Amino acid sequence: MFVLRQCLTLGTKSSIRNFSASTNLINVTVNEDTGVAIMELNRPPVNSLNYELLEAMHRTLVKLENDRCRGMILTSTSPTMFSAGLDILEMYKPTVDKARKFWGMLQNTWIKLYSSPYPTVAAINGHSPAGGCLLALSCEYRVMVPKKMIGLNETKLGIVAPQWFQDCMKNVIGVRQAEKALIAGTMFSSEQAAQIGLVDELATDREDLLKKAHNFLDGQLGLPPHSREAIKLSFRKETLSRLVSGLEADINYSVDFILRPEVQSNLEMFLSRKKQYK
Amino acid sequence: MFVLRQCLTLGTKSSIRNFSASTNLINVTVNEDTGVAIMELNRPPVNSLNYELLEAMHRTLVKLENDRCRGMILTSTSPTMFSAGLDILEMYKPTVDKARKFWGMLQNTWIKLYSSPYPTVAAINGHSPAGGCLLALSCEYRVMVPKKMIGLNETKLGIVAPQWFQDCMKNVIGVRQAEKALIAGTMFSSEQAAQIGLVDELATDREDLLKKAHNFLDGQLGLPPHSREAIKLSFRKETLSRLVSGLEADINYSVDFILRPEVQSNLEMFLSRKKQYK
Amino acid sequence: MFVLRQCLTLGTKSSIRNFSASTNLINVTVNEDTGVAIMELNRPPVNSLNYELLEAMHRTLVKLENDRCRGMILTSTSPTMFSAGLDILEMYKPTVDKARKFWGMLQNTWIKLYSSPYPTVAAINGHSPAGGCLLALSCEYRVMVPKKMIGLNETKLGIVAPQWFQDCMKNVIGVRQAEKALIAGTMFSSEQAAQIGLVDELATDREDLLKKAHNFLDGQLGLPPHSREAIKLSFRKETLSRLVSGLEADINYSVDFILRPEVQSNLEMFLSRKKQYK
Repeated sequence: MFVLRQCLTLGTKSSIRNFSASTNLINVTVNEDTGVAIMELNRPPVNSLNYELLEAMHRTLVKLENDRCRGMILTSTSPTMFSAGLDILEMYKPTVDKARKFWGMLQNTWIKLYSSPYPTVAAINGHSPAGGCLLALSCEYRVMVPKKMIGLNETKLGIVAPQWFQDCMKNVIGVRQAEKALIAGTMFSSEQAAQIGLVDELATDREDLLKKAHNFLDGQLGLPPHSREAIKLSFRKETLSRLVSGLEADINYSVDFILRPEVQSNLEMFLSRKKQYK
Repeated sequence: MFVLRQCLTLGTKSSIRNFSASTNLINVTVNEDTGVAIMELNRPPVNSLNYELLEAMHRTLVKLENDRCRGMILTSTSPTMFSAGLDILEMYKPTVDKARKFWGMLQNTWIKLYSSPYPTVAAINGHSPAGGCLLALSCEYRVMVPKKMIGLNETKLGIVAPQWFQDCMKNVIGVRQAEKALIAGTMFSSEQAAQIGLVDELATDREDLLKKAHNFLDGQLGLPPHSREAIKLSFRKETLSRLVSGLEADINYSVDFILRPEVQSNLEMFLSRKKQYK
Repeated sequence: MFVLRQCLTLGTKSSIRNFSASTNLINVTVNEDTGVAIMELNRPPVNSLNYELLEAMHRTLVKLENDRCRGMILTSTSPTMFSAGLDILEMYKPTVDKARKFWGMLQNTWIKLYSSPYPTVAAINGHSPAGGCLLALSCEYRVMVPKKMIGLNETKLGIVAPQWFQDCMKNVIGVRQAEKALIAGTMFSSEQAAQIGLVDELATDREDLLKKAHNFLDGQLGLPPHSREAIKLSFRKETLSRLVSGLEADINYSVDFILRPEVQSNLEMFLSRKKQYK
C-alpha cells in the first residue's frame, strides 16, 4: 500500500530543524501517490499529551495543511495505547505560566485538527481515555481495534471535561448518550463504542485497522476538495467558534480549575496510584 | 437494602412544621448509610400536580440539597400511576393570580429537580403522561415497570408543551423523535419508551424497579461529587438558562395561553369526560 | 379512498388564472371529505426545480393554507423520480438578477412548506437527490418506495448544501449522521434511508406509498389543529428563523458562490455528462 514512503520535507532550514526535533515524538509518513499522511504518536510509554507532544502535533498539522495533504490517519506506535490523554504532570503543581502555555497549546492543536481542510481518520490502535478520546473524536471517522477502552472519563479523575470536549462527544453520540457517559466518566469497550456510534467501525487487528482507515480516505479522495472542506467547516463552525470566541476565558477557567487544592489532591492521588502499579 | 430508614428531620422548628405538613403529599425516606433518599408522590388518586404537591416537592428538594443527599429516587405510592401531570383543576377557570402562582411553583420545582447536585433516578411505577413525563425526563436515569404509558401528550389535550418540556424531551430522545412525539402527543408503552431511549431500563415489577434504581445510584456514589455535579450542570445549563433567563415571560405566555377561551373549553371537555368515567 | 376528487378552485378570477397557469407543472387534488390534498410535481422528465416550478409550488402552498387544508401529500407524476433537485440550468451562467430571483423563490417555497400549519408527508415515489431531498426533509413524515436513492449530494457536484439544508438533515437524522452524509454527499438507498431514520417508512409500491401517507395524515386529523400547529412551529422556529433573519445574506452568499468560476466549471462538466447520457 505504501509503495513510496517519505518523511515530510520542509521548505526552510529552520523549519527542518524544528520538525526534526519533533520526529522523536511523532512519526509522519506520506504516500506521495495519494497524498495521504500517517501520523503516529510516539511518546512512550502511553503517549500522554505533554506540551512538547502537542506542539509537535500542531506543527505537523500546519505542515500537512501547507503541503496540501489529501488525507491523514492519526494513530500511535504503542501496541496498547492510542493516547492516555493529557499528561497529568503538566497539571500537577505547575506554575501558572506553564499551565497557561500548556492549555493554550492544547487549544491550538485541537483547533487545527478539528478544522483540518483534509479528511482525517483516527486509527485507534489502543486505549483512548480522556484527551486521547478527544483526539479521536476530532477526526472525521474512527476505526478501532477490539478489546480496548475509549471514553471521556474526566469525572472519575475528579476533573471536568471542558465545554469543547463535551461538544465533540455530543456531536458524535448525541446529547443523551454524551450526558450519561460524561457524568459517569464511562470508559466504553471497543464493542460498546461501536454500538453507540462513538467509533464508526471495528477492525480485527492493526493491519485491518489501517486498511479500513485507508478505505475511508479513498472514499473522500474523489470529492471536490473545496466543497468537502466548506461543508465540513460549516458543520464544525459552531463548536469551533464557541471555543475560539473565548480562548482566553477558557484558559483562565481551566487553569484556575486545575490549580484548585481539591483538584491538585485528586491528581496527587492519581499519580501515587500510578507509581504503585509500576 | 434499607437497614436504617428515617424520615427527614429538619433544622428549625418552623421548617419541621412545614415539612410535616407536606408528609401527606410526599413520603421521604433516607438511608443514612448511603445518603440515598426515596421520594414518593402521594396524592391519590393519580398524583396530579397541584400547587400544594409541587410546593411540597420543591421544599423536599431544597431540604435534600441542604442535607447533602447522595442520591434520590423519585417514585409514587400509587399502584398504577407515577403522576398524571399538571392538575387540570389548577388551570380550569383560575384567577390570574392563582394561575401565575401555580406556574411559578412549577418552574421552581422543575429547576430544583433538573439542576440537583445529587444524582436522580425516576422509578416509574405507573402511567406518566404530560407533567408526569416531565418529572421523569428531569431525572438523570429512568427505569419503568412494564405495560404502562409515558409521554408528553399535551397536544391531544388541546394545549402546548412549553419550551422547557420540549427541550427535556429533545435532550433525551433527540430532535426527530421528539418532534414526531410532541406533534402527535404520543403516549408510548413502557416497551416502546425503552426502545427509543425515553426510559433507560425496564423492570419486571416494583421490587425490581427499586433495585435497578439503586443500582444506577450505586454507580454514581463512587464518583467525585464536585466533578459529577459540575459536568451535570454543564450539560443542563443551556436548557436551564433558556427558562431561567425568561421566567416572567414564560409565566405571562403560559397564563395567557391557559386563559384562552378555546383552551378553557378543551379543559372543560376533558374534565367532563373524566367525571363520566368515574 | 378518494371518493370525491376536485381540483382546487380559487376565490378570485385573477388567482384562478394564475393557478391554472401552474397546473402544467403541478397537479393538485383535494379530498373534500377529509380536506387532504395531494400535490404532484409534474415537470418531466425529472421534476428539476426551476423558477416556474418553485413559483407554482409556492402559490399552491399559499392557496392550501388559505383554504384551511387539513393535510398534504407531496409526490410526483414521474415513475422514477421524486425530484432531481435544483435545476442546474438556473445556476449555469445566469445573470445576477435571474440567480437572485431564483434563490429568493427557493427560500420562499421552503419557508412555506417547512412552516405549513397543516400536516405534510412526502410520498417519495422515486429518486430524491439534493433539493429533492430537501423537499422530503421539510415534510413531517417520509414514506418511500424501495430501490430508489435519496440524499443531500451537493458536495459531489462541487457545490455546498446551504445552512438550512444542513439544519433540515440534522433535525431528522442527527448531527453525526448528517455530518458524515453531507461531507461525502452520500446517496442512500431507500433501505439505508429507512435504517438511519431519513425516511420513516418503506412502501412496497406506489399504491402502498399513498396508503401509508394517508395513514400518517389520518393520525394527525384527530388532533386539535391549533395545538398541533403551535408545537410544530415551536420545534421548527430555530431552523426557520436562522434563515428568515438572514434572507438577504443567504441570497448574497449563494449567488456569489454559484457564480464562482470553479463552481461554474463544475456545473458545466455536470451538464455535459448529462447530455452524454441522453
